[in-house]
Amino acid sequence: MQIDVKTACEKLIAADNILILTHQRPDGDTLGAAFALLHVLIAAGKKARVSCHSGFPARYGFLSGDYEPDESFTPGFTVAVDVASLPLLCDDFEKHKGKIDLCIDHHKSNSGYAKLTLLDTGAAAACEIMYEVVKGLGGEITPAVADAIFAGITTDTGCFKYSNVTAKTHEIAADMIRFGANHAFINKIMFDTKSRGLLMVEQMILENTRYYFNGRCAVIFLPSGLNKRYQVLEDELDGISSFPARIAGVAVGITIKAAEECVGKFRISVRTASPVDASKICMSFGGGGHANAAGCTMTGTLEEVTEKLLSAIQSELEP
Amino acid sequence: MQIDVKTACEKLIAADNILILTHQRPDGDTLGAAFALLHVLIAAGKKARVSCHSGFPARYGFLSGDYEPDESFTPGFTVAVDVASLPLLCDDFEKHKGKIDLCIDHHKSNSGYAKLTLLDTGAAAACEIMYEVVKGLGGEITPAVADAIFAGITTDTGCFKYSNVTAKTHEIAADMIRFGANHAFINKIMFDTKSRGLLMVEQMILENTRYYFNGRCAVIFLPSGLNKRYQVLEDELDGISSFPARIAGVAVGITIKAAEECVGKFRISVRTASPVDASKICMSFGGGGHANAAGCTMTGTLEEVTEKLLSAIQSELEP
Repeated sequence: MQIDVKTACEKLIAADNILILTHQRPDGDTLGAAFALLHVLIAAGKKARVSCHSGFPARYGFLSGDYEPDESFTPGFTVAVDVASLPLLCDDFEKHKGKIDLCIDHHKSNSGYAKLTLLDTGAAAACEIMYEVVKGLGGEITPAVADAIFAGITTDTGCFKYSNVTAKTHEIAADMIRFGANHAFINKIMFDTKSRGLLMVEQMILENTRYYFNGRCAVIFLPSGLNKRYQVLEDELDGISSFPARIAGVAVGITIKAAEECVGKFRISVRTASPVDASKICMSFGGGGHANAAGCTMTGTLEEVTEKLLSAIQSELEP
Repeated sequence: MQIDVKTACEKLIAADNILILTHQRPDGDTLGAAFALLHVLIAAGKKARVSCHSGFPARYGFLSGDYEPDESFTPGFTVAVDVASLPLLCDDFEKHKGKIDLCIDHHKSNSGYAKLTLLDTGAAAACEIMYEVVKGLGGEITPAVADAIFAGITTDTGCFKYSNVTAKTHEIAADMIRFGANHAFINKIMFDTKSRGLLMVEQMILENTRYYFNGRCAVIFLPSGLNKRYQVLEDELDGISSFPARIAGVAVGITIKAAEECVGKFRISVRTASPVDASKICMSFGGGGHANAAGCTMTGTLEEVTEKLLSAIQSELEP
């Protein structure tokens, strides 16, 4: 059942021993929403803990820092934040079926798995909704809460760069800075720091970018084993898929990533500039996504996969 | 003489035939401030024109677009926007001496060359001040004015990333989006588009980045003639100097750029993470700047210059 901010706050105020779940391979938005809620619930005298199936990445240490989960209680109320569907929680997600009391999310694809869902698909980040929840709970916005909400918003908007940003997004950021968010530090960690391993991957990509259709399509290939070879984290590599579409003149940027688990299987990421429809290209291979960013999985040799993609792209570029 | 927003607006309302000057090699802030003011003055029934010594770069076509300067008048009042000192206007700046009626600026280093100066060094961009001027003039914030002010703010804050951002910066951005600023489009042009030439320069740099002091210092070298060899614009190359300081673990990032006009002369850019003081390093070679970003000019062979820099950096890294 879909509920509004007021009802979500009433449920949280009535609850105790609250377990807050993030999605696995967490980013700044799921962690920011979780820790903002945690701080406010604890300040309200409740027992609460944050749990993330795949742990807290070192990169987000400024949020999770010296966090010691309070293991002294059996959950009485479970909240999932920024989690669009149960499989995103963990691989053995069946155990959570029917057990999520409240979901706070902004994804259009939210599957409605929770008993109660606070969904705002117009919010650029789950943390925009969490900002309203924190206010609704009457919680004090400490610098730690401000950091958490700011981190979520800057994560999901690419540092206020993407088209999901609204006037409200900037207003919440202004408010968080007033309440002490360490905004420049957070942005530096999130958007202005690259590992030497990632630089080596970028160098490899720059040497191997291939252009088609008079430079309107750029294709990069990521072989398997990159994380180990260059000591890069999976979430650092994720950012690479926006690389080809950033090249001037490119309307379709393709990233072909060899699957780690199986030879002959590739994960394809397609980023496009309007009016080229990325989801249409991916749908023809059983994938999907948004108009400007979509994905699919393909099998075959690298040459076969590239050939099929280029043929689908040609139909979109020259309809 | 320093004046406030109200007085600046009174002077502009009393004036006509207004010439608006930007600094040469213009960026989004000087152009944004100039065009925002132009639109509002023309809407108020005044004659006005924007002039930039080095012309309007194609990259800022979304601001200058189909602009045809109104050459039908002799300037009766001259305003310089985002121009800290006369030499930044043009090479033969002497002709402007004593002729600038009003300067609207945010640089600490403003030399006070204008008859009247509206200076706010706490503003992240000249466009933050221009926002107040536009409001003070009672001007309508059309989508074109909103685009101009937004462009200035996003330029000078690195898309809201830098430490100069304040709560007010985000509030003005929110306002501009409400008034129709094409924010995602502007950010895409400014921060998410790279020419193939620039990618080739980046590849060259990645291959040649040198590390010192256990990776705490990274040095890149830009030979002369890059713009011609790779068909890159000077302002694209400017962004390169933030490259070495972005590498994880690097506290001092150095860019050594061979001067185009003279062999054996190098322009040095130093970017540091606190507490390492970039201006202290550059001051020892006759340069200067801010604590985290400074510059100087050095002569000698590349080896000599590098040697001297490393020795100055060592004193700062291991005081």
